[in-house]
Amino acid sequence: MRAVDIIMKKRGGPGRPNGSELSREEIEFLIGGYVKGEIPEYQVSSWLMAVFFNGMTFAETGVLTDVMLKSGGVIDLSGIAGPFVDKHSTGGVGDKISLPLAPIVAALGVKDPMMSGRALGHTGGTLDKLESITGYRTGLSVPEFRDFIQKTGFAMTGQTKEIVPADRLLYALRDVTGTVESVPLITASILSKKVAEGADSLVFDVKCGTGAFMKNIDDAKRLAESLVGTGQAMGKKVVALITDMNEPLGDTVGNFLEIEETMDILEGKGPADVTELTLAIAAWMAVLGERAKTVAEGRSLAEKAVASGRAMELFLENVALQGGDAKKLLADRGKRRSAHRAEFRAASDGYIASIEAFKTGLAGVYLGVGRNRTEEAVCPEAGMILHKHKGDAVKKGDLIMEVYGKDEASLEPALKLIGEAVSYASERPAAGKLILGEITAV
Amino acid sequence: MRAVDIIMKKRGGPGRPNGSELSREEIEFLIGGYVKGEIPEYQVSSWLMAVFFNGMTFAETGVLTDVMLKSGGVIDLSGIAGPFVDKHSTGGVGDKISLPLAPIVAALGVKDPMMSGRALGHTGGTLDKLESITGYRTGLSVPEFRDFIQKTGFAMTGQTKEIVPADRLLYALRDVTGTVESVPLITASILSKKVAEGADSLVFDVKCGTGAFMKNIDDAKRLAESLVGTGQAMGKKVVALITDMNEPLGDTVGNFLEIEETMDILEGKGPADVTELTLAIAAWMAVLGERAKTVAEGRSLAEKAVASGRAMELFLENVALQGGDAKKLLADRGKRRSAHRAEFRAASDGYIASIEAFKTGLAGVYLGVGRNRTEEAVCPEAGMILHKHKGDAVKKGDLIMEVYGKDEASLEPALKLIGEAVSYASERPAAGKLILGEITAV
Repeated sequence: MRAVDIIMKKRGGPGRPNGSELSREEIEFLIGGYVKGEIPEYQVSSWLMAVFFNGMTFAETGVLTDVMLKSGGVIDLSGIAGPFVDKHSTGGVGDKISLPLAPIVAALGVKDPMMSGRALGHTGGTLDKLESITGYRTGLSVPEFRDFIQKTGFAMTGQTKEIVPADRLLYALRDVTGTVESVPLITASILSKKVAEGADSLVFDVKCGTGAFMKNIDDAKRLAESLVGTGQAMGKKVVALITDMNEPLGDTVGNFLEIEETMDILEGKGPADVTELTLAIAAWMAVLGERAKTVAEGRSLAEKAVASGRAMELFLENVALQGGDAKKLLADRGKRRSAHRAEFRAASDGYIASIEAFKTGLAGVYLGVGRNRTEEAVCPEAGMILHKHKGDAVKKGDLIMEVYGKDEASLEPALKLIGEAVSYASERPAAGKLILGEITAV
Repeated sequence: MRAVDIIMKKRGGPGRPNGSELSREEIEFLIGGYVKGEIPEYQVSSWLMAVFFNGMTFAETGVLTDVMLKSGGVIDLSGIAGPFVDKHSTGGVGDKISLPLAPIVAALGVKDPMMSGRALGHTGGTLDKLESITGYRTGLSVPEFRDFIQKTGFAMTGQTKEIVPADRLLYALRDVTGTVESVPLITASILSKKVAEGADSLVFDVKCGTGAFMKNIDDAKRLAESLVGTGQAMGKKVVALITDMNEPLGDTVGNFLEIEETMDILEGKGPADVTELTLAIAAWMAVLGERAKTVAEGRSLAEKAVASGRAMELFLENVALQGGDAKKLLADRGKRRSAHRAEFRAASDGYIASIEAFKTGLAGVYLGVGRNRTEEAVCPEAGMILHKHKGDAVKKGDLIMEVYGKDEASLEPALKLIGEAVSYASERPAAGKLILGEITAV
């Protein structure tokens, strides 16, 4: 077997302009060989570009996912009673869904082995939000991870180095070779990590809009279908929701600010959009975890877990288990803010036409909510509180956003970006849908 | 400027699915940087694959050619009166056209600075054929190359290391990354070398058929148009003929055997097909070199150069200049054959339907005419003499080919391949055209 033949098979030629499906042996030879250092980067990168153009079938993507998955260790959850159901979002602005979701589904008996990422670019990171809780540790050992899942039904940690080394290698190569935006490669990258983390079933929240990786509904649908189709090909139960990310989700964009909003959601008083999406995903997780027969039943159970206070209880138990100061957290609630504060007020009378998610997210990077490079630190107290949303009537001078920066200098560029993000209309804009589509089978 | 942005510009994305034309600065950054060791192979290879899929405009290919050309030295022919016109064939079986062509056009006052290659795979190599002449040196220094062109109007040498190092690097990378079969990349590879060798005008012989790199007329036409269009974009006069390579050209496939056939052509007694193609190309070279106003006039002049004996005289002068033993050459003519001889005879009565060029060429590799790897030696005395061609009537047992091998063991596998190459028909097959197309402008 030669790498060049595998590349050419995917690339195609006379009579087969779209290339051919690769076999498990071929994908193992190429990607397994790459991870072992036997296949050079220049062959992998030309193969990646051929995949960008010619795509992969779901079965083929499933094999790639499996080969990547097997490049490293997997989290051993044996001995713990399942079901293990996880959720993954493709990333957005103000997207704190994971935080209230895990305790809600845990309250229903669905175990969530959650491994999350950090803020990068305009999107926030679950780990950075959790670490804004004083003392909270996100670098759990595997025994801790197992232990906490057993105790409260979920645990929140960062990815360990042992998980899918092939993805780290491939992603770094894709990043510099113009091959990031490939649906099968994105699918294998996401799925391999989620399966390695021990989930049997998965709900994907595929974000769609200016603040998302997928800017339009067609691309989002393609990714959602690929995640579901590939997951199915691997024998997993997978559902994907396509959700709007043209506006930030909820009333807060920040780290500690989003922890506060998480508690609001868990107490049943969160903003409508983020509450709705949390419950919709929780309902599906209950169905996939066989704790509910229908999505409606799952929804009803999730609502009860909030109303009973059980979900909030589990959240605070997890905070304590992972080293967080739950008492301080509750005392800080509504008070812990950066001293560097500014206000963004309405420039004219009318309606908010849009608060554009991408630019709002970029404003967050300036403020210290997120980062441009992985090695940068974030500021727990920075962020934005949105007092108005798309469709709200405003008078000139009305408070639209409170803005908290890591320092005084960060406020001006953030306010400038917010000024570009907020647009006005003389008539009330039509309310958009939050959940744009649902892919349950392909 | 970042390499990844250049890759993505060529790759394309939303709104520009076919990518965009790269600027000179971008191509210089990427390819110039690669040659200097500043851009890694994995970025160049993903770019090559993007070019494979999205192609390049003629202007863009011209810029790539120019950047490649400037990666090394060019042959300085200043001080020698032109015009400098060269011919390049994409490679075939029995294709010895370069050998009689150079002295014929030299006789018309057209200078031919000819740099040739070696046999590889099923195709023969001009340098290997020339070196079958005892003493003939193909590794000329630049002063020798200049001197011999001044003396006889042409010289025959191999490529020096200084010529287009970018092509050696890129070709080696394309070979292992599945990006060989790209018309703009092939075009830039061919043209950069030809222009670096000092030619002002070029005639391309784009072979088409089983024995050629381009198997069908559409691919051959695309390459011919790209060569002409790119050459024009670079300000060169370029013509391309598309010629049949389903059958070997002429009556011989070999090294010394093809030198003998060259002399036959130069004495006006060569096989019809190879004579016809030699004169057709010579006619165009006379036109491009402004020694004739029309192709018909060029043809007539070329015929006269043969009839007068002047072309043969120049050939023998060149042999002597380049160290060859002209006296021995003439004495060896018709006699110098390997002792390992076999005959291939007709298996049935009827007509020769085809002597398939590719398999005949492969038979030549077994015999020692060519080689599979660049480091292998060839055998000067090996080869095949074709006594029958497509369309000839045969009786069972008639001699179709004399076969000469480098050793006794080489005969059997060669005969087997020849058996596969030769097919029979009960009715005379229609004669195909030798010159399938002529691209003079795009």
